[in-house]
Amino acid sequence: MHELRKDPVTGRWVIIASERGQRPTDFAINRQMPSGGTCPFCYGSEDKTPPEVLAYRKAGTPPDSPGWRVRVVPNKYPALRIEGPLGRRAAGIYDMMNAVGAHEVVIESPDHQAQLGDLGEAQIAEVLWAYFDRFADLMKDSRFRYILIFKNQGADAGATLEHSHTQIIATPVVPKRVTEEIQGARQHYDLRERCIYCDIIQQELENRTRLVQQNELFVALEPFAARFPFETWILPNRHSASFDSMQKPDVEALARLLQQTLRRIKVTLGDPPYNYVLHTAPCGGNGVAECYHWHLEIFPKLTKVAGFEWGSGFYINPTPPEIAAEALRGAAI
Amino acid sequence: MHELRKDPVTGRWVIIASERGQRPTDFAINRQMPSGGTCPFCYGSEDKTPPEVLAYRKAGTPPDSPGWRVRVVPNKYPALRIEGPLGRRAAGIYDMMNAVGAHEVVIESPDHQAQLGDLGEAQIAEVLWAYFDRFADLMKDSRFRYILIFKNQGADAGATLEHSHTQIIATPVVPKRVTEEIQGARQHYDLRERCIYCDIIQQELENRTRLVQQNELFVALEPFAARFPFETWILPNRHSASFDSMQKPDVEALARLLQQTLRRIKVTLGDPPYNYVLHTAPCGGNGVAECYHWHLEIFPKLTKVAGFEWGSGFYINPTPPEIAAEALRGAAI
Repeated sequence: MHELRKDPVTGRWVIIASERGQRPTDFAINRQMPSGGTCPFCYGSEDKTPPEVLAYRKAGTPPDSPGWRVRVVPNKYPALRIEGPLGRRAAGIYDMMNAVGAHEVVIESPDHQAQLGDLGEAQIAEVLWAYFDRFADLMKDSRFRYILIFKNQGADAGATLEHSHTQIIATPVVPKRVTEEIQGARQHYDLRERCIYCDIIQQELENRTRLVQQNELFVALEPFAARFPFETWILPNRHSASFDSMQKPDVEALARLLQQTLRRIKVTLGDPPYNYVLHTAPCGGNGVAECYHWHLEIFPKLTKVAGFEWGSGFYINPTPPEIAAEALRGAAI
Repeated sequence: MHELRKDPVTGRWVIIASERGQRPTDFAINRQMPSGGTCPFCYGSEDKTPPEVLAYRKAGTPPDSPGWRVRVVPNKYPALRIEGPLGRRAAGIYDMMNAVGAHEVVIESPDHQAQLGDLGEAQIAEVLWAYFDRFADLMKDSRFRYILIFKNQGADAGATLEHSHTQIIATPVVPKRVTEEIQGARQHYDLRERCIYCDIIQQELENRTRLVQQNELFVALEPFAARFPFETWILPNRHSASFDSMQKPDVEALARLLQQTLRRIKVTLGDPPYNYVLHTAPCGGNGVAECYHWHLEIFPKLTKVAGFEWGSGFYINPTPPEIAAEALRGAAI
C-alpha cells in the first residue's frame, strides 16, 4: 500500500511507495530502455492486464478478448488503490493519508507501432470518448477531488511500455499546478469578471504570432510565457471549465486538432518524446465554472534541464514561442 | 537580448531567448552529448572565458592565467545580462521585462575529472566561499531580488560541460518555488511563532529514520514528502534565514557534510547525474528572518518522468525516503 504525504512547507502532496520501494540497485536497471517481449497491450494479450473496465469493441466479441478498438484497464502496478477509506492522519508535525484513488490505462488502439498522432480522426475521437466516459464514472466517487489524464510518449518522457497509451489517475487531492491555475484565474475573474483564458485566446487570435492552428471549436497555440521549447496548449475557443462538458461536435473537433498538432510536432521536431496533461475543473466543480477554462498542455521533451527547474520553479526557454509557432504552422502534414 | 515573460495565470516568470533562439533543427544536435575538444575551464584556457570576476589563486599569479584554485567567470552565453534597466512593460494583457541579471559560473577546481564530491574538504570550502563572496557582491545591486545558486552534474542533469562547475543567476524576480516556501513558512510562523524548518529538524533528529548524517552545525536528511528517489536536503541545524549569515566554522562544517553526502549518493547510486539548488532568503531579506530557513536541495536524477510532474505538480516517488536514508547511511565512504 502506498501513502500520500504532504510537504509541510509548500503543501504539495506526493505519492510515496511505502511497502517495498525501489532499492538503490534497481536504478541501474531502470536507466535502460524497457526490454522486448510480448506486449500486454496487443491483441491476444488481454489476460496479461487486469480485466477491462471499458472497451469499445466489435459487436459480439466478449470482454478481455481481441476485437476492441480502445480498451481501458486498471494499471497492473497502480500508484493509488481503489479500496479503502482516506485515513487522513498526522505523523508528528506531518500530514498523510492512504493512497486511495484509481489508476487506469487507456490503450489507444490495437496497433503496437502507431503513436496517437498517427491514428485516424475517428480512432482519436474514440480515445477521447474513453477519457470522457472514465472521467464521468470516476467523478461519481465522492472520495476523489481530481481526475488527472496524462500521456507519456517515448521512454525519455517516462513511458515504460512502447504501445501507445494514456494514464488516468483519480486522486483525493487537487494537483498543485491546477490549484495555482485556479487561484490565478479566480483573481483575474474577481478583478475583471472575465476568464483569463478567454482573454488569452482573444489576444492570440488577434496577434496570431503564437497561433499554431484553429478550427471551429478549438485553438492550438504556443503560450506567451512557454516554459519549454514547443510547449503547446489546446483550448476550447468558447468558455468551458470542465472537460466533461464536451459534446459530440467538440470531441470530433478536438480529435482533429489534436491529431494535426501532434503531427506538426512530430514532423517539425523529428518524432520527439512528449508528455501531455489535461487541466480541467476539480470534481464537483469547486465553484470555478465562470473563471476556469479547461485545456490540454503538450510538452515535447527536448531539453535536459530538469532538477534546476524542479528546485527553483524558474525556467529558461531557448526557443521563443513565436519561432516555435511559425515552425509548427509551416510543418508539412 | 533575452526577455522575462510572466505567465498571466500562475504568475510564473520565464526567461525566453528573444533574439535568435534555438531552431527546430538545433534539437537533433542537442540530444547528443557535448563533444570533446579543449575544455574552457582547464588551466591554460583562461582566455576562452570572459575575464574572471573572482579567483582564489596562488600569490603572484596574474588574473586569467593558471594558478587559481577556484575561479568565477561570467557565463559566455548568459541567460540574463548585467546591463540596462528592468524595462517593466505590458504586451497587451501580458507582462514582461528585460532579462536583466547576472549569470556566472563557478569553476570548482582546476581538475577536469574531479566531481565536487571528489574534492577535499578544504577545496569544497573554497567553492562555498566563492558562492558566499559572489552572493554578497550581487546582493548589492538593487535591481536583483534573488541570487540563485545551482549545480547540474552530468549531461542527464543538464550540464553542457563536463568540468565540474556551479552556476549563479541573479534575477529581478523571486523564483516561484522559493516564494511558495516562504508563504508556507510564514503561515506556520504566524500560527505557531516557530520556524517550520526548525520543527522539521527537531522531529527528524528525534525520529532518525530519515536522517542521513549530521555534524555539529548541519544536518542531511531525506524529506518526509520527498518528490524524487534520494532527494536530500542539507540544512543548518540552528535557525538561519540566509546563506550569507555563514561564518568560517559554518562553511567548514557545510563543506564536510556536503562532501560526505555527495559521496554517499555517488557510492549508493553508482555515480548518478544530479542537481542541487540553494534556497535562501531573497535579497533584502523580505522580512523572512524569523520564519525562513536556508537549505540546499539535492536531486539525483534517477527517474525519467518529467513532463507529467511539470504539468501537474503531482509527484510519484517509488523509493520511500526512509529506505533511501538507510541506504545512504550505510554507504561505505
